[in-house]
Amino acid sequence: MNAHEDNAAANPVSVVGLGAMGQAIAAVLLANGHPTTVWNRSAGKADELVARGAVDAGTLGAAVGASPLVIACLLDHASVHEALEPVADLLSGRVLVNVTTTTAAEARRTAAWAAEHGIDYLDGAMIAVPQMIGRPGSSLLYSGSRTAFEQHRAMLDLLGASTYFGEDAGLASLYDLALLSGMYAMFGGFFHATAMVGTAGAKATEFVSMLVPWLKSMADLLPSYAEIIEKGDYTTDVQSLLFNKSAVDAIARTSLEQGIGVDMVAPVQALIDRQIAEGHGADSFVRVIEGIRNPVPRS
Amino acid sequence: MNAHEDNAAANPVSVVGLGAMGQAIAAVLLANGHPTTVWNRSAGKADELVARGAVDAGTLGAAVGASPLVIACLLDHASVHEALEPVADLLSGRVLVNVTTTTAAEARRTAAWAAEHGIDYLDGAMIAVPQMIGRPGSSLLYSGSRTAFEQHRAMLDLLGASTYFGEDAGLASLYDLALLSGMYAMFGGFFHATAMVGTAGAKATEFVSMLVPWLKSMADLLPSYAEIIEKGDYTTDVQSLLFNKSAVDAIARTSLEQGIGVDMVAPVQALIDRQIAEGHGADSFVRVIEGIRNPVPRS
Ligand SMILES: NC(=O)c1ccc[n+]([C@@H]2O[C@H](COP(=O)([O-])OP(=O)(O)OC[C@H]3O[C@@H](n4cnc5c(N)ncnc54)[C@H](OP(=O)(O)O)[C@@H]3O)[C@@H](O)[C@H]2O)c1
Ligand SMILES: NC(=O)c1ccc[n+]([C@@H]2O[C@H](COP(=O)([O-])OP(=O)(O)OC[C@H]3O[C@@H](n4cnc5c(N)ncnc54)[C@H](OP(=O)(O)O)[C@@H]3O)[C@@H](O)[C@H]2O)c1
Repeated sequence: MNAHEDNAAANPVSVVGLGAMGQAIAAVLLANGHPTTVWNRSAGKADELVARGAVDAGTLGAAVGASPLVIACLLDHASVHEALEPVADLLSGRVLVNVTTTTAAEARRTAAWAAEHGIDYLDGAMIAVPQMIGRPGSSLLYSGSRTAFEQHRAMLDLLGASTYFGEDAGLASLYDLALLSGMYAMFGGFFHATAMVGTAGAKATEFVSMLVPWLKSMADLLPSYAEIIEKGDYTTDVQSLLFNKSAVDAIARTSLEQGIGVDMVAPVQALIDRQIAEGHGADSFVRVIEGIRNPVPRS
Repeated sequence: MNAHEDNAAANPVSVVGLGAMGQAIAAVLLANGHPTTVWNRSAGKADELVARGAVDAGTLGAAVGASPLVIACLLDHASVHEALEPVADLLSGRVLVNVTTTTAAEARRTAAWAAEHGIDYLDGAMIAVPQMIGRPGSSLLYSGSRTAFEQHRAMLDLLGASTYFGEDAGLASLYDLALLSGMYAMFGGFFHATAMVGTAGAKATEFVSMLVPWLKSMADLLPSYAEIIEKGDYTTDVQSLLFNKSAVDAIARTSLEQGIGVDMVAPVQALIDRQIAEGHGADSFVRVIEGIRNPVPRS
C-alpha cells in the first residue's frame, strides 16, 4: 500500500532548501502521505528523501511548478531572495510559506516583494531543532496571508503546533526572536551563575539541580510583572529599584572578587542605575523595561 | 497559656536589626515559642514584636547578653561591623548567625573577625522576601560553622528550608548571589522580549503566557549544558556557536530595527563572538561560559 493513497487529504507540496531543517520538514510531510517534491542548491541532499518517495525536481523552477504550495527553508533572507527572485513568475498564483529565520523587517520586505508578484505569502518561524519537527514540543509561528494559513493549516500542523499572529508578515519573526531573546538571556544567566559557584569548586551538575527549580519559580513572577508593564504604573512598596540595585551590585562585586566577568550582570546594573539616575529609585524594578524601550542614542 | 511554655525545645534567641527582614524573622521565632530578645538601632521598630511577647533589650550589648544565639539582620557588611565590633567581647563564646546580604569575600572577612574573638560564626543568605519568611518557598543558605548549623538547625528551619554548603563562610553568599544572577538575567530577558513584541502592539500579559512555558521548557535543557560544562568537552554536532550566532545576530538586528535597545542581547552576542574569534565556531554554544570564567582584562 502506498503512503500517498492512505491519505484522502494528500496535497502536493514542494520543499526548497534541504538543510537540516528542510530535510526534517520534507520527511514529515512525506511520512504523512503528501506528495512531496524537493530541491536543493547543491546535490546529494535529496537522496534520502527520494528513497522515501520524494520527487527530486532537479531545478528550482520545476520544484515550484510541481505544487500549489512551496515551503522555502533556506539559510537567511539573502539566500531566499537570491534563490526565489529568478522564479518569481513561476511562484505567482501559488502559496509561498517561508520558514527561513529572518528579522521582522526582512519578512515584511519579502512579503512586499511577494505581493508585487501575486504570490500568496505566509512567513513562518520555527521554534524547534530539526529532530523536533513533527514531534511534541515543536512550535511554528506564522504571520502574513491569513487565507494561506487557513488553507494549509492542517498540513502545517504536522510540523508542530501552529500559531498565527496576524497579517503583518513581520510578527512571526518578531515573536520568534523575542522568545529566543528571553531564552538566550536566561542561558547567559545560567552560565554566569555556574561560573560564580564554580570559583568555589561547585559541580555544575549539582548546582543546576538547585538553579532550575529556582528559575522556574521566579518565572512564575513574570505574569505579575507583565501586569505592571501593561498598566504602566511603576509605584510600589516592595522590591524598589534601589533595593534591587543593592542585590545586583553585590552580584557584580562578588563576581569581580571571584575573578569572573560581569558580562550578564553589568547590563542589568546599567538598566537599574539609569532609572535611578532619572529619579525613579523608589519605583518598581519593572521600570527597567523603559530603558530597553527607549535606548540611549548610540554615539 | 504562654506560648513559651508550649514548646519544650524553646531556646532563647536574640535578633538584632529589625528592618523588614529582622522583624519577619523575630515574629516567626516568637510564634514558635522561642523566648526572643530584640534590638534595633533606631527606636519604634520593636514595638509590634514586644506586643507579641518579645523583650526589647534596649541596648545591643543587652541583646547579645540575653541569648547564646544571636541572629544579625542588618543592612550590609559595613553596618554589621559598625554595630557588632564594639560588642565582640560579649559575642565571644556565643553563636552569631549573620543573615545580612554580603559578598562572599565580606562573609569570609566577618568569619575571620569572629574567629579572632571566639565567636562561633555561621553566615546566612535569605532567598525570600519578608512576607515569605516562615512559609513554604522560603529558602535560607548557610555556610561557616558546621556545629553552629547543626546545633540550631531546628530553629533555623522555622524561617525556611535550610541548606548548608560547608565550612567556607563565603559559600552561602556565593550560592545566593549566583541564584540571583540567574534570576536577574532571566528577568532582563523577559523585559527585552516584552519590549520587542511591544513594538508591534502586543499586550505584555498575553505575551507572558507564551513566554513563561517557553522559558520553563528551555530551562530543562540546562542540566544537559551543565554536563557539558562538567566534562569540559565542547565538541558538538548540534547547535554550534556559529549557528547560535546567526540567531542572536537576528535578535540584535530586529531589536535595532524596531528601535529598542540591545542591552541584554549585546553581551550574549559578545560572548559568542569572542569564542568564534578564538577559533571555536564549530564548538557548542555552551563554550561561552569560558568567556565569563576568563574575562577580558579591563583596560
Ligand atoms: N537547525 C535549527 O535548529 C534551526 C532552528 C530554527 C530555525 N532554523 C532556521 O531554519 C533555516 C534553515 O536552517 P538549517 O538548519 O536547515 O540550515 P542549513 O542546514 O545550514 O541549510 C541551509 C540551506 O540553505 C541553502 N542555501 C543557502 N544559501 C543558499 C542560496 N543562496 N541559494 C539556495 N540555497 C541556499 C543550503 O543549500 P546548500 O546545501 O546548497 O548549501 C541549505 O539547503 C535557517 O534560517 C535557520 O536559521 C534552524
Ligand atoms: N527585604 C528583602 O526582601 C530581602 C531579601 C533577601 C535579603 N535581604 C537582606 O536582608 C538584610 C536586611 O534587609 P531588610 O529588608 O530588613 O532591610 P531594611 O528594612 O532596610 O533594614 C535594615 C536594618 O539595618 C539596620 N542598620 C542599618 N545600618 C545600621 C548600622 N550602622 N548599625 C545598626 N543597624 C543598622 C537598620 O536599622 P535602622 O532601623 O536604625 O535604620 C534596619 O534595622 C539586607 O542585607 C538585605 O539585603 C532582604
